[in-house]
Amino acid sequence: MDAGFHGKLDADQSESQISHLALDIGGTLIKLVYFSRNKGRPIDENKNSKNSVIEGRLHFAKFETSKINDCLEFILSNKLHLGGFRHHVDPASDKILIKATGGGAYRFADLIKEKLGVSIEKEEEMECLVAGANFLLKAVHQEAYTYMDGRKEFVHIDHNDLYPYLLVNIGSGVSMIKVDDDGKFERISGTSVGGGTFWGLGRLLTKCKSFDELLKLSHQGNNRVIDMLVGDIYGGLDYSKIGLSSTTIASSFGKAISDNRELEEYKPEDIARSLLRMISNNIGQIAYLNALQFGLKRIFFGGFFIRSHAFTLDTISVAVNFWSKGEAKAMFLNHEGFLGALGAFMSYKKRGRDDSISPQLGQRYPVCTPRVGDKICYPLNEDLNDFDSLECSVYVA
Amino acid sequence: MDAGFHGKLDADQSESQISHLALDIGGTLIKLVYFSRNKGRPIDENKNSKNSVIEGRLHFAKFETSKINDCLEFILSNKLHLGGFRHHVDPASDKILIKATGGGAYRFADLIKEKLGVSIEKEEEMECLVAGANFLLKAVHQEAYTYMDGRKEFVHIDHNDLYPYLLVNIGSGVSMIKVDDDGKFERISGTSVGGGTFWGLGRLLTKCKSFDELLKLSHQGNNRVIDMLVGDIYGGLDYSKIGLSSTTIASSFGKAISDNRELEEYKPEDIARSLLRMISNNIGQIAYLNALQFGLKRIFFGGFFIRSHAFTLDTISVAVNFWSKGEAKAMFLNHEGFLGALGAFMSYKKRGRDDSISPQLGQRYPVCTPRVGDKICYPLNEDLNDFDSLECSVYVA
Repeated sequence: MDAGFHGKLDADQSESQISHLALDIGGTLIKLVYFSRNKGRPIDENKNSKNSVIEGRLHFAKFETSKINDCLEFILSNKLHLGGFRHHVDPASDKILIKATGGGAYRFADLIKEKLGVSIEKEEEMECLVAGANFLLKAVHQEAYTYMDGRKEFVHIDHNDLYPYLLVNIGSGVSMIKVDDDGKFERISGTSVGGGTFWGLGRLLTKCKSFDELLKLSHQGNNRVIDMLVGDIYGGLDYSKIGLSSTTIASSFGKAISDNRELEEYKPEDIARSLLRMISNNIGQIAYLNALQFGLKRIFFGGFFIRSHAFTLDTISVAVNFWSKGEAKAMFLNHEGFLGALGAFMSYKKRGRDDSISPQLGQRYPVCTPRVGDKICYPLNEDLNDFDSLECSVYVA
Repeated sequence: MDAGFHGKLDADQSESQISHLALDIGGTLIKLVYFSRNKGRPIDENKNSKNSVIEGRLHFAKFETSKINDCLEFILSNKLHLGGFRHHVDPASDKILIKATGGGAYRFADLIKEKLGVSIEKEEEMECLVAGANFLLKAVHQEAYTYMDGRKEFVHIDHNDLYPYLLVNIGSGVSMIKVDDDGKFERISGTSVGGGTFWGLGRLLTKCKSFDELLKLSHQGNNRVIDMLVGDIYGGLDYSKIGLSSTTIASSFGKAISDNRELEEYKPEDIARSLLRMISNNIGQIAYLNALQFGLKRIFFGGFFIRSHAFTLDTISVAVNFWSKGEAKAMFLNHEGFLGALGAFMSYKKRGRDDSISPQLGQRYPVCTPRVGDKICYPLNEDLNDFDSLECSVYVA
């Protein structure tokens, strides 16, 4: 969903019962996850336990953080905030709490309270990222994939052999988290050269108006125009003794030194391409070095920077492959941008009211019960777009 | 020496015998090293061996690679090229060979032959970098130093406990070399985000006319204007749970996303500062991760990017300290930019003519013999400038 969208959801969605909005408010983007119960479908009671299952859909949406008012307007007009659980620590109050994570949960708590009349319950960012990733990797069929030679290939995840892994979340900045088990993790590294750098530097250099425009531009560009290649230094030759071909980038943006061309004389698409290559390659390299340090064989990349963009996927994959000499493989998550929001969504807990829905998606793997089989969880599209949803079910305790 | 310098050397230097020019022609800069015999001082014969010692000075100079003609003019007008050794494989020829390393030794071999009438003998780049670093670390008093809290502190190098170490050479691109012993090394890593990126991107973003101008600008800038800090995301708070203070950079250039300011509305000094910080920090991090991987305790940083610039030294030092949790220390080399050229200089070998000087600086550590003691080798200035020299001696075999 583009920022600026103020509309109401379509009838089908808005008429169904929407509940459990969760937010991940990052430096650049606000990510929303909320659940809608399928219209007219009763709660499917499981006679063997106290739990029941509600079938419905998980919805995903995003807004730019700088346009938070558009986001709040969207929430308000679709009454997404009214499905939060009611807090009963103080019986006199009946205040609604909305789960939120990311720095904006702190920064915008007052604004949200003022505009929506609901309080924010802050969830720890890394915990949410990990919970979201674990949920996706365990519960969603065809979630993780590799990308090589222009081909996306889904990876079968063995739930019993998932841990440990390295989770690399590329938002405005980049966090690298070693995940050892369900709920057991450590943020081991990160880099400030992330999506915010691509979009921030890219905006200054190209005058693009949006991240997506910049990404699209990069698709048509040629990084060799501005990057200094090994062959540029070696007179067209490889530097074969150390395994560097003539087309290897020796210095990102290095050709701009001697070209004597002004910024305006370069094509924006070439600049976008060099920038994307530099940042993706750098993240791939640092991720690999961290995985190596901790002996982690699997690296999953998430975060809104990636956006299933072929060149990004390719650069990160090639970087991990190059630096690991083929030993490691980059893997990506279909719902890459929503890890934190999903984790916040799953942190809703039963708090005492009988009619409250307590989504336990993240805590009872697999969510796919034998009764409903594989049908419960799968992504609708191969590439998750701005406004998408995932068929799923929640447990009612 | 600034590019564009065409003058002759001063009388003292030009009247002395200049010999053994060596070049390191990189993607951005050409570095020159040459030796001049002290005027009027005879060869000091060592009666206990066949070898003699000539006292003199090693001179260092640099030019921009894009202005190679200025460099060749300088060599020509000062006859620096005539001191190379004469090649006698073919007795009929009397051609002069000049040692050169770096990609430009390949790229400009024909041009040099044409303009100077001398042939280039190419020396392998990594070999030269390592030979140059080993020479400096073993033979030059007060060469390596640390930088912390604004203070430069020279490090005593124990010659018997030097290896292994990580050499990080920051030129246009960055090479990371594991040095195991004299002549025993491996290029284990590198990054394309180096000096060429700083100067290339910096030129496009600020319209600065020189690397030094950009570096000077960065000194006055404030990176917080454009970088997105943890506090910007967290509403001024630390993200203390994962040890990130509110002033930690979350996303380099990330504030440019939401500021809605055009490039021209930012101060060039703030841009220069953010750029320098991003690149220095990134190099420090990747260097540390590589040192860790190979269990290397010492990291020496060289290359012309550094230029003894306080903010660069500080950022790299802080990065290594931060990522290693205080376990590792960044060290710098006073003659940072001339490792390759020095290595090429030391690759001159005796080739049969009795009157040829064979500098053995790199092969007989220490060059400081008991007779001349500490006086032989020391840097003239704390910070080596564009055109500087080092008192030293060469062996005559």
